[in-house]
Amino acid sequence: MFHVSRITHHILMKLGVDYYPEHWPQERWAVDAKMMADLSLTYVRVGEFAWGLFEPSEEEISFDWLDTAIDILRNEGLQLVLGTPTPTPPTWLTANYDVLQRDERGIVLNVGSRRHGCANNPAYQIHSQRIVTAMAQHYGSYPGIFGWQVDNEFSCHRTTRCYCDHCRRAFQEWAQKRYKTLDHLNEAWGTIFWSATYTDWSQIPLPMYSSAQQSPSLQLDFRRFSSDSWVAYQKQQIDIIRKYAPTHQITHNYMGLGDGNVDQQDYFDLAADLDFVSWDNYPQGAKGPDDIALNHDMMRGFKQRGYWVMEQQPGVVNWHPYNRPVPPGQVRMWSYQGLAHGAEAMVYFRWRAARYGQEQYHMGVLRHDGSKTRLYDEATQLHAELNRLPNISRTPAEVAILFDFSDWWTIQIDPHQHDFSYHKQVQAIYHHLWQAGISVDIVRRGATDLRAYKTVIVPSPILIDEAELETWQHYVESGGRLAITCRAFVKNQSSVWTDQPLPAHLDKLLGVKLDEYLGIPPDMECTVSNVAQTDIQSYQLWADVLEPTTAEPLMVYSNQYWAGKAAATMNKVGQGVAVTIGYLSEPFFASSVWQTLGLNELALPFNLPAGVEATRISFEGGGEGLLLLNHHESQTTVEFSQPVDALLSEQPKVTSLPLAPFGVEVVRW
Amino acid sequence: MFHVSRITHHILMKLGVDYYPEHWPQERWAVDAKMMADLSLTYVRVGEFAWGLFEPSEEEISFDWLDTAIDILRNEGLQLVLGTPTPTPPTWLTANYDVLQRDERGIVLNVGSRRHGCANNPAYQIHSQRIVTAMAQHYGSYPGIFGWQVDNEFSCHRTTRCYCDHCRRAFQEWAQKRYKTLDHLNEAWGTIFWSATYTDWSQIPLPMYSSAQQSPSLQLDFRRFSSDSWVAYQKQQIDIIRKYAPTHQITHNYMGLGDGNVDQQDYFDLAADLDFVSWDNYPQGAKGPDDIALNHDMMRGFKQRGYWVMEQQPGVVNWHPYNRPVPPGQVRMWSYQGLAHGAEAMVYFRWRAARYGQEQYHMGVLRHDGSKTRLYDEATQLHAELNRLPNISRTPAEVAILFDFSDWWTIQIDPHQHDFSYHKQVQAIYHHLWQAGISVDIVRRGATDLRAYKTVIVPSPILIDEAELETWQHYVESGGRLAITCRAFVKNQSSVWTDQPLPAHLDKLLGVKLDEYLGIPPDMECTVSNVAQTDIQSYQLWADVLEPTTAEPLMVYSNQYWAGKAAATMNKVGQGVAVTIGYLSEPFFASSVWQTLGLNELALPFNLPAGVEATRISFEGGGEGLLLLNHHESQTTVEFSQPVDALLSEQPKVTSLPLAPFGVEVVRW
Amino acid sequence: MFHVSRITHHILMKLGVDYYPEHWPQERWAVDAKMMADLSLTYVRVGEFAWGLFEPSEEEISFDWLDTAIDILRNEGLQLVLGTPTPTPPTWLTANYDVLQRDERGIVLNVGSRRHGCANNPAYQIHSQRIVTAMAQHYGSYPGIFGWQVDNEFSCHRTTRCYCDHCRRAFQEWAQKRYKTLDHLNEAWGTIFWSATYTDWSQIPLPMYSSAQQSPSLQLDFRRFSSDSWVAYQKQQIDIIRKYAPTHQITHNYMGLGDGNVDQQDYFDLAADLDFVSWDNYPQGAKGPDDIALNHDMMRGFKQRGYWVMEQQPGVVNWHPYNRPVPPGQVRMWSYQGLAHGAEAMVYFRWRAARYGQEQYHMGVLRHDGSKTRLYDEATQLHAELNRLPNISRTPAEVAILFDFSDWWTIQIDPHQHDFSYHKQVQAIYHHLWQAGISVDIVRRGATDLRAYKTVIVPSPILIDEAELETWQHYVESGGRLAITCRAFVKNQSSVWTDQPLPAHLDKLLGVKLDEYLGIPPDMECTVSNVAQTDIQSYQLWADVLEPTTAEPLMVYSNQYWAGKAAATMNKVGQGVAVTIGYLSEPFFASSVWQTLGLNELALPFNLPAGVEATRISFEGGGEGLLLLNHHESQTTVEFSQPVDALLSEQPKVTSLPLAPFGVEVVRW
Repeated sequence: MFHVSRITHHILMKLGVDYYPEHWPQERWAVDAKMMADLSLTYVRVGEFAWGLFEPSEEEISFDWLDTAIDILRNEGLQLVLGTPTPTPPTWLTANYDVLQRDERGIVLNVGSRRHGCANNPAYQIHSQRIVTAMAQHYGSYPGIFGWQVDNEFSCHRTTRCYCDHCRRAFQEWAQKRYKTLDHLNEAWGTIFWSATYTDWSQIPLPMYSSAQQSPSLQLDFRRFSSDSWVAYQKQQIDIIRKYAPTHQITHNYMGLGDGNVDQQDYFDLAADLDFVSWDNYPQGAKGPDDIALNHDMMRGFKQRGYWVMEQQPGVVNWHPYNRPVPPGQVRMWSYQGLAHGAEAMVYFRWRAARYGQEQYHMGVLRHDGSKTRLYDEATQLHAELNRLPNISRTPAEVAILFDFSDWWTIQIDPHQHDFSYHKQVQAIYHHLWQAGISVDIVRRGATDLRAYKTVIVPSPILIDEAELETWQHYVESGGRLAITCRAFVKNQSSVWTDQPLPAHLDKLLGVKLDEYLGIPPDMECTVSNVAQTDIQSYQLWADVLEPTTAEPLMVYSNQYWAGKAAATMNKVGQGVAVTIGYLSEPFFASSVWQTLGLNELALPFNLPAGVEATRISFEGGGEGLLLLNHHESQTTVEFSQPVDALLSEQPKVTSLPLAPFGVEVVRW
Repeated sequence: MFHVSRITHHILMKLGVDYYPEHWPQERWAVDAKMMADLSLTYVRVGEFAWGLFEPSEEEISFDWLDTAIDILRNEGLQLVLGTPTPTPPTWLTANYDVLQRDERGIVLNVGSRRHGCANNPAYQIHSQRIVTAMAQHYGSYPGIFGWQVDNEFSCHRTTRCYCDHCRRAFQEWAQKRYKTLDHLNEAWGTIFWSATYTDWSQIPLPMYSSAQQSPSLQLDFRRFSSDSWVAYQKQQIDIIRKYAPTHQITHNYMGLGDGNVDQQDYFDLAADLDFVSWDNYPQGAKGPDDIALNHDMMRGFKQRGYWVMEQQPGVVNWHPYNRPVPPGQVRMWSYQGLAHGAEAMVYFRWRAARYGQEQYHMGVLRHDGSKTRLYDEATQLHAELNRLPNISRTPAEVAILFDFSDWWTIQIDPHQHDFSYHKQVQAIYHHLWQAGISVDIVRRGATDLRAYKTVIVPSPILIDEAELETWQHYVESGGRLAITCRAFVKNQSSVWTDQPLPAHLDKLLGVKLDEYLGIPPDMECTVSNVAQTDIQSYQLWADVLEPTTAEPLMVYSNQYWAGKAAATMNKVGQGVAVTIGYLSEPFFASSVWQTLGLNELALPFNLPAGVEATRISFEGGGEGLLLLNHHESQTTVEFSQPVDALLSEQPKVTSLPLAPFGVEVVRW
Repeated sequence: MFHVSRITHHILMKLGVDYYPEHWPQERWAVDAKMMADLSLTYVRVGEFAWGLFEPSEEEISFDWLDTAIDILRNEGLQLVLGTPTPTPPTWLTANYDVLQRDERGIVLNVGSRRHGCANNPAYQIHSQRIVTAMAQHYGSYPGIFGWQVDNEFSCHRTTRCYCDHCRRAFQEWAQKRYKTLDHLNEAWGTIFWSATYTDWSQIPLPMYSSAQQSPSLQLDFRRFSSDSWVAYQKQQIDIIRKYAPTHQITHNYMGLGDGNVDQQDYFDLAADLDFVSWDNYPQGAKGPDDIALNHDMMRGFKQRGYWVMEQQPGVVNWHPYNRPVPPGQVRMWSYQGLAHGAEAMVYFRWRAARYGQEQYHMGVLRHDGSKTRLYDEATQLHAELNRLPNISRTPAEVAILFDFSDWWTIQIDPHQHDFSYHKQVQAIYHHLWQAGISVDIVRRGATDLRAYKTVIVPSPILIDEAELETWQHYVESGGRLAITCRAFVKNQSSVWTDQPLPAHLDKLLGVKLDEYLGIPPDMECTVSNVAQTDIQSYQLWADVLEPTTAEPLMVYSNQYWAGKAAATMNKVGQGVAVTIGYLSEPFFASSVWQTLGLNELALPFNLPAGVEATRISFEGGGEGLLLLNHHESQTTVEFSQPVDALLSEQPKVTSLPLAPFGVEVVRW
């Protein structure tokens, strides 16, 4: 297992575009290819929505038009990424076979959009495999092909979970594989509750629309099953491509995560079969610049290696309720942000704004009429700068956040307090570290060796994993600094509550027992303070009331009836320290906790202006520095504690560095 | 008919718990039973969700495990209440028979939760009756059984109204029974409107999802039918239990009422076949302490006798969007509130927090790990106090509020002003009386003798009942003080508007005619004042503009175009007075109205601090006093106009009595 | 084509009522008829919901009861308008034939309300035509009949768009008729996007519930098809009536327009087959007095002639969340507003408040009990006044707003900014003109001769029509003042984006190119100013950033990164001027734009108090003046720049004219 992700040499961040030659007259293709080459692009992604064009009627398959387009593009030196076209089954397919998804009320998701096919539908699988086989056979040794993108944005439009009869049968088989016998399943799910004991596999339902809530155990396993269904669907295509195109790279384009939006697919599982992860970066959908950064780090973490931005927002988009302007310079800055976090390619979506269909208001590198937008100039500038800079790499992170989709889903299913969000907690933790200029790796829960990190933070690991406890114990004993937050180790892996005192099994490592756990409603003002009562902070949503055994308190609750009880503690174990944080606050870490976790040592030695992102970099051949990004539309100034060289603007030995709106700078200490 | 409800001798409020032995290893049962006995509990409710365990496959029925549990419990002196397990049909039943409810769009309410069975579904009825018969035969003379709870929380999750084909046919039969001929039905419902005349019983629809609103007459009768369906379903079980267990008491556990939540079941009708009413008291679901009190009084009113709390919130629960902490002492205080209003048993839900299923975050007397929560100590204290106190009873109420579900539904169906709520009006009336320490009985509209009450308040009796008018006339003539609020006597019992001038038939008793009725939108500021214009009050939502004939004005409208017209009036009739209140305000009663209704004579002679509830009590052998409850988390002080003895704290002759947070006191004048 | 609509002689505004004799005992009919005659009514509409009474079982048809009612009414001198009863199919019809609409999820719209029949359903068509045939045969030469209202409020309850299988087949046929070949359709809709290419007509779907948005091209054509379906359904009835009742007038009762409410039916298309347009005026559903005025002008515009108010709100209604009081005088004032805008009849809905069904809280001229409301007196007063006034007519409008339903729908389908509304923009434009006392005509886009207007405003003509461009060019060249607002000429008629630079084809006429179009989110403060920067205004939602070629700037953007660019321009072309307005603001027209469009010359020479509406009128035989309406509940005063005669109050030569609450005045210069 990897523990540190290094950014590859910067000039390896190549540029590219997503291109739909089929939308334009063939005579335009050469013009486009020439313009792309002028822009020094490397990659062009094509094909992922063109099934109906490849196979206009059943089994009548031809790639002639795409061959022509590819030939024109590769003749300009461009390399192709081929999208398998399965997100949009052709109209004859949906007309002749019922491959459509059903929602939780059993209502069909109709044709006319995309992602309406069900992963467990046999007809959809057969037809998907046939077109991918034909494509892989045809392009396996075709010149100019770099690799493949399987399908497009699995889980987009929240289509991971389908409630059709095929899914119900597949879920029953999945459950049988997981639990072997009905007795095991009934015990694991606690079906004794509300008389849900199953006496035949065929009785197992999907958690559909009902009078009241469904079993959290059933729900959690259905979420796992649904995620697994698309992993398997992807694997069917990967197996075909590997067979016919063994030298090609294979990826899939992920999306930025968020509750109620992109949260249905376990992205670690999906990464396992890929060569590398890609993602589609539309920063205006993020909560802020730190959330874009978090998503970049997530993507690097899902496979613990460099990744691609397969779709980079190029300007105004079309899918928000309000689609904001994108000022000059912002796309260039976003591109540098990818570089900072380990992106190996930056592919702009899309080459030219579409005249047809649902995305007409989505800007491209070119306008609808074929003229250049300002991004064309910004990308030109970016390419020149990348060639001018010395070779740099991202300095490895010394802090890890452990992340787990099952924990996320478990808390989503039963948050106890409506606004308690696992993912928002991760965002809050990350936000605090990001502001201090501390680099972070996202590591999957279950990682067995954490020694590369000075500090490891585990947000609300609600599901108990006793084996992992051993990892954590060893990590702390050998000098690690571990923080575990509220709601830790409450339920078994099937979302059944432990019969042990909380935090189950963790009490020795953490040196605390849980007196009480309390949800805090929004109208209740609650505070914590350090022991000396010099540092008072409000907190929200949750209070694990701690009873230290061997630990000592770092923070205590300072009002309400549990005032005086411990809120955060530290427990010295071997060479290290195990910290418990029982509440949620912003900023996330109180000063005493921050110091106990050694985060003060890892932070930048000067304050960053609000909205400025700093990434530690290493220069090839030695030397350290920062990549600085101004996410604000106004100018700001960074004040260093020592003079630095500003390489992009070629200013030596400055201590006060102005950053233009959306400005970027590379500094060397 | 009863008119006054006396609280039974206080030590008759026994304690109990709801227990699920099936969730725990058999070896634990004796430990639990011993702990219950240590707590001096009397009652244990079991079984109401265990159908799948009683009957794991069709007609394979056994109660062995429950026998074992019951034997262990009764050997510790505990008495059992058996829940019939019909709220959760077993999985084989729902797999083999389509017994599921449909919503108003015709979409099935799927399995996986509870209350998904349809009361009018023949298969569900047959299987329900079989399991209840088996259970009643087995336990009819089994030792240790106190009685039965039929099913669990009818109408929970708003499942009273089902839209399946069985219900449609049953509704057609119900309509035929009510109206005999289609001509009668068409006339009663006014089907001439929008061409809805039925020419065959089979054409009668359920009021399902449609382009626009459905007939209010159809809707009202469908609501009655739906309520009746569950009364009949309950009756089927009661008949079986009475046959095989003739000495057992039978109850059902109601829920606290509220618009859009618990409002579908006519609780008077449901009470008719029961020996006594129980209810599930989760005070955090109420609007405030007075609303909890109102629900207690409602429950006493539904059968005009003492009642049980079959589920009492024991601490934090799981079903709110935000589940608040429950501070120390609050559950003890809630228990005393039950005592104050006439509860004969206080059964805590649940004995031990569940590890499985949908209610894992619901606290119990014990935690998930079997350790005691603070409620264990509070219940111990409570039991000791109850044994220490002299014998007291609740002093009979002298004020009645007449209540009717059909009035509620009629106004819900067509409120005219979106926020006009029959139930909220009752809450507002009750709130004003509660603050003044005035005890209230809830009496069903249609009661034929009201002489036990000095004052009777009838909120918005929108449906005309000419027979009841006679009762009211006699009541007032013989000295009663009657108040009738706006929207009185507008429609016949099928929700068809009268062709008489408003208030139809009431004009003589009230001495007014209705000039105009007006809805008041939220953005319109409206005021009333007394005749001398010394007391000005704002009002909301409604104005019945009154034209006194024999009445004299108490309040007049003081702005808008109807300024100067009468808003509230009094009409002297015989020895009594009939008051009309044309508007809604908070506090509900203007000073002149309050005095005219004699409420000043019934109020406590001193002011209660906010959040303190006072219930008048009588001491056995003579003497009067108050049971005082502090619903606030902070200390407060009650200032009496004369010295009192505080019995719980054993302080004689105090005039200033501090009440601790959630404190309780019994005082004697 | 008409370009100016003259109000006919004022005493031609006749009064009437909507009457349901079938709701009342036959012995009452003569009383009602007498009261109507006393009120000098001319028209009575009957029958539009009485299908079940005409045809109580299939093909058993009789009009006896209506004959009786009509005879009684005409004997009092009243003229009848017969409603065809098709909005409410009888219960036997819906029970025996599946004629019900389906929503976009495929869920049936059940019986029990109205408008649930599908226009494309063969059984519904056949039965509709049979009852209309019978009715037309029977009443074609019956005495006392003035004319017909076909059905009732097409599109009420948003029932224009149905998603049943009949509609799907009909839509496929409609598409085939429009596009002839699948190749044409695929090209027109751009089905190359997301693999939606159709290879068989039967594959063409309706834009139903799906994972994500549907093609804007599919959606736009489905909206046109749905509107066309009801035009065809109406035509079927009109053809029958014209055959059997060739001398009768035929109308349909429209509703006031609004986004998300009344926006589904192309009212121009619906008007084509009618003799005149009627509408149902419920002013409390409008956004304000100017929106009522706009609707009146719309109705005059749909057929470019005088129209009827077929239902005029008579007092409190029943269908708002909050149903407000209607103060004395307001209905009389609304009646005068109809007169001001060209209404030829004012028919009050309803004669007597209904005792039955869904509209019981809807007031009438009479109350439920048959007594008179204050409207009876107001109508009496109105009739007397109309007879007393000299003959006046509405002065022709000199300003036109071009309006188009396809533009509205195109922007609704893809607004880009959530709140961008075509119709709200029209309201904002109208509002500014209305406040200045400028009369406006609403003219359909595509009108080929605009010379009657001094100024023409075209709000967001998003769909390109090159032929129309020629009309506009000629209009401006010959001296017209044309204003075109943002988002002009972006898409072809199938909602596919142009491949030309924006504003496509318009650049020469307007003398501008579009640098960029920008959506403005609500949290972004944006301003424009005139060139001299003396007049600064904020704007919302949209910015077309203009690059003048031959035009000169009137307004420039004054903040954000596009500051300094042109926001509004004027281009002198021939004798006229073409103005481009790139943004949306309130008031809509900046001072420089207002003057360039010559609106200052058309405005009243004095300021109107807020809420006062002024309509220019001409006196028969010469002379000009105003009809003044006070929409406020408080008194206000109009200050004239010269003395006028106030005719209603008979005050000569006043310069300061008080208007009572809801007061009306006719002044002559």
